[in-house]
Amino acid sequence: MNNKMDFFGKISEKCKIYEDVEIGEGVTICDNVIVYSNVEIGYGSFIGPNCILGEPTHNFYKEKARYKNTKLKIGKNSIIRSHSVIYAGSTIGDNFQTGHRVTIREHSKIGRNCSVGTLSDIQGHVEIGDYCRFHSNVFIGQLSTIKNFVFIFPCVVLTNDPHPPSDTCTKGPTLEEYCVICTGVTILPDITIGKDSLVGAQSLVSRNVEPETVVLGVPASKFCSIYDIRCKKGRLEKPYPWRNHFSRGMPWNKADVKLQNMSRD
Amino acid sequence: MNNKMDFFGKISEKCKIYEDVEIGEGVTICDNVIVYSNVEIGYGSFIGPNCILGEPTHNFYKEKARYKNTKLKIGKNSIIRSHSVIYAGSTIGDNFQTGHRVTIREHSKIGRNCSVGTLSDIQGHVEIGDYCRFHSNVFIGQLSTIKNFVFIFPCVVLTNDPHPPSDTCTKGPTLEEYCVICTGVTILPDITIGKDSLVGAQSLVSRNVEPETVVLGVPASKFCSIYDIRCKKGRLEKPYPWRNHFSRGMPWNKADVKLQNMSRD
Amino acid sequence: MNNKMDFFGKISEKCKIYEDVEIGEGVTICDNVIVYSNVEIGYGSFIGPNCILGEPTHNFYKEKARYKNTKLKIGKNSIIRSHSVIYAGSTIGDNFQTGHRVTIREHSKIGRNCSVGTLSDIQGHVEIGDYCRFHSNVFIGQLSTIKNFVFIFPCVVLTNDPHPPSDTCTKGPTLEEYCVICTGVTILPDITIGKDSLVGAQSLVSRNVEPETVVLGVPASKFCSIYDIRCKKGRLEKPYPWRNHFSRGMPWNKADVKLQNMSRD
Repeated sequence: MNNKMDFFGKISEKCKIYEDVEIGEGVTICDNVIVYSNVEIGYGSFIGPNCILGEPTHNFYKEKARYKNTKLKIGKNSIIRSHSVIYAGSTIGDNFQTGHRVTIREHSKIGRNCSVGTLSDIQGHVEIGDYCRFHSNVFIGQLSTIKNFVFIFPCVVLTNDPHPPSDTCTKGPTLEEYCVICTGVTILPDITIGKDSLVGAQSLVSRNVEPETVVLGVPASKFCSIYDIRCKKGRLEKPYPWRNHFSRGMPWNKADVKLQNMSRD
Repeated sequence: MNNKMDFFGKISEKCKIYEDVEIGEGVTICDNVIVYSNVEIGYGSFIGPNCILGEPTHNFYKEKARYKNTKLKIGKNSIIRSHSVIYAGSTIGDNFQTGHRVTIREHSKIGRNCSVGTLSDIQGHVEIGDYCRFHSNVFIGQLSTIKNFVFIFPCVVLTNDPHPPSDTCTKGPTLEEYCVICTGVTILPDITIGKDSLVGAQSLVSRNVEPETVVLGVPASKFCSIYDIRCKKGRLEKPYPWRNHFSRGMPWNKADVKLQNMSRD
Repeated sequence: MNNKMDFFGKISEKCKIYEDVEIGEGVTICDNVIVYSNVEIGYGSFIGPNCILGEPTHNFYKEKARYKNTKLKIGKNSIIRSHSVIYAGSTIGDNFQTGHRVTIREHSKIGRNCSVGTLSDIQGHVEIGDYCRFHSNVFIGQLSTIKNFVFIFPCVVLTNDPHPPSDTCTKGPTLEEYCVICTGVTILPDITIGKDSLVGAQSLVSRNVEPETVVLGVPASKFCSIYDIRCKKGRLEKPYPWRNHFSRGMPWNKADVKLQNMSRD
């Protein structure tokens, strides 16, 4: 056995690939990965050990041999870290990254250049824009809508049922562009978080949040405008809107622009 | 290699099954599953990839070759999704379902028709009734008691130590029938949540909750009777008690009754 | 196939070990484990199924064949439970224990006799002392400092960015010796929790906490001195400081002292 870490661009003989799978050029598939049928993996992507791609939906357990997977498409140059499970029927854009043990369920639409942290659980039937960053252990309930450039920090939950358990009213929150949801926040169903707004750590959001607003508390109420926030250490003149000073991984980052041009077809 | 998704009712040659394991008819065991000794799997059950059943308790690391697993029994027609770990010494009823990466520790008694969501962690020495539903990332501390028909939503924690760390006082909460614990709630030790009650999202429950009561806040206090809740969208006349309108998977669901009769011996 | 549970001290033929790995005497490595290059595992340690040790850092995805792992060192007599991922470049002391699916990222320094519960996520670039206990699903952000004998209960998050997202101000909290962080707490960046202090469940800590102090709430404020806490059940005269009555696994436990002397070189 070759015991050097030179497995880039190779498909492990210890993985299992079912029928109707399209694997782009230069894709790496590590040990013990399962790729169920009807999965497309874009070129240059890396699938870490013990991942499952194209996990069948609950109909599989009823329909058994008659069951057919709907298509899972993962964009090029993506990195799916170990022990992650991505269901059939989702579409994910280029340059996607996950942490370890991420779950992404069916009918998720995720844009380009997004990342989803370790243990996060995207429940499916959601729309997520481009350049979104979810940190560890983020839970996105079904029927949520997340626009471009949204940051979500650890242990945030987006809910969708105003009268749990019910079947009639479910609708997730809408997070507008550039908004920031800090650690440990719960957002109640059908709430809109306005563009550029900030929800403080450990808050419970039970009412819509206007654009450019900071809210805090259980339940959350308006604290100030985002323009009123100052950096105590004086290292940032105005921390918000964050897009004025933070550019890592964003399309306005000059270093990244070069990389993106290189990887564009 | 057959690359069709027709592995129902088959036992993968890439799993490992130790001695004294009883596997019912029609059981599916996927790749890389480990079934340690003294496990019984009811007929028609499905064990997803990378699961571990009969995980040894901490005595294993002390007793080594002398260690013996106590029995793990999983009821018929259960679905254990990938990367889950179920310890030796637990008893789980029929039609059990888990999400991915669930942990169930030793001496858990779980009734029939329960489901436990992705990442949930049941710490053992607990009693859980029938028809309970735990969503993603629910943490049930040791010595908790959960009656029938209880719903627990994501990121709820049931604690058991009033003076952590201590060894002398531990006792978990008691959740009475039909109660609903919403997202992100922490329940302190030895608390009782009354029948049909509702604990609102992100609350900290530090006192007993009367039956048919809504509590909210940090710490939680009475908000109203469950009969006072109205549906803003007008789609449900009275959302609570939920058992008056919600029947999916419940024994009073007429569609399900037919299925259950079919699968009964 | 031998189907008895007698795999202690053996290295599974179904694991994969890369170059430059040092494995101490009596180490157990279970099925489907991956040990990447430049890992040292102390004698008597147990590595559960599906673990990954020496997970490469993000540079691996850029540098590919040129990438070299920095050293991961795991102390003797450690138990790493299934599905855990420990990155290259960390140093972990003797008698370490993890639950299942733990993540420990690069440049973590962890002392002796620590344990980290199921699903916990240590983000790297942290310093953790000796005899610390983290329960399930604890999230330790980068640049945190945790002294000896600290207890952290489930679903606690230590954050490090006062103006997320930013790159300029990150610094994690400092937890002084013997402090106790209860379930569901979020600690904001650069906060110090004083020696022997207690942070009550579900609190948001936004200011420094003096030694020997109980704080509670969102945001947390002083509730009382730790010496004022009484045990309602009368089983403990004074629950705090906990080190006066709790000794399980601690160096002042007489039963444990014998075991530790035995395992000392």
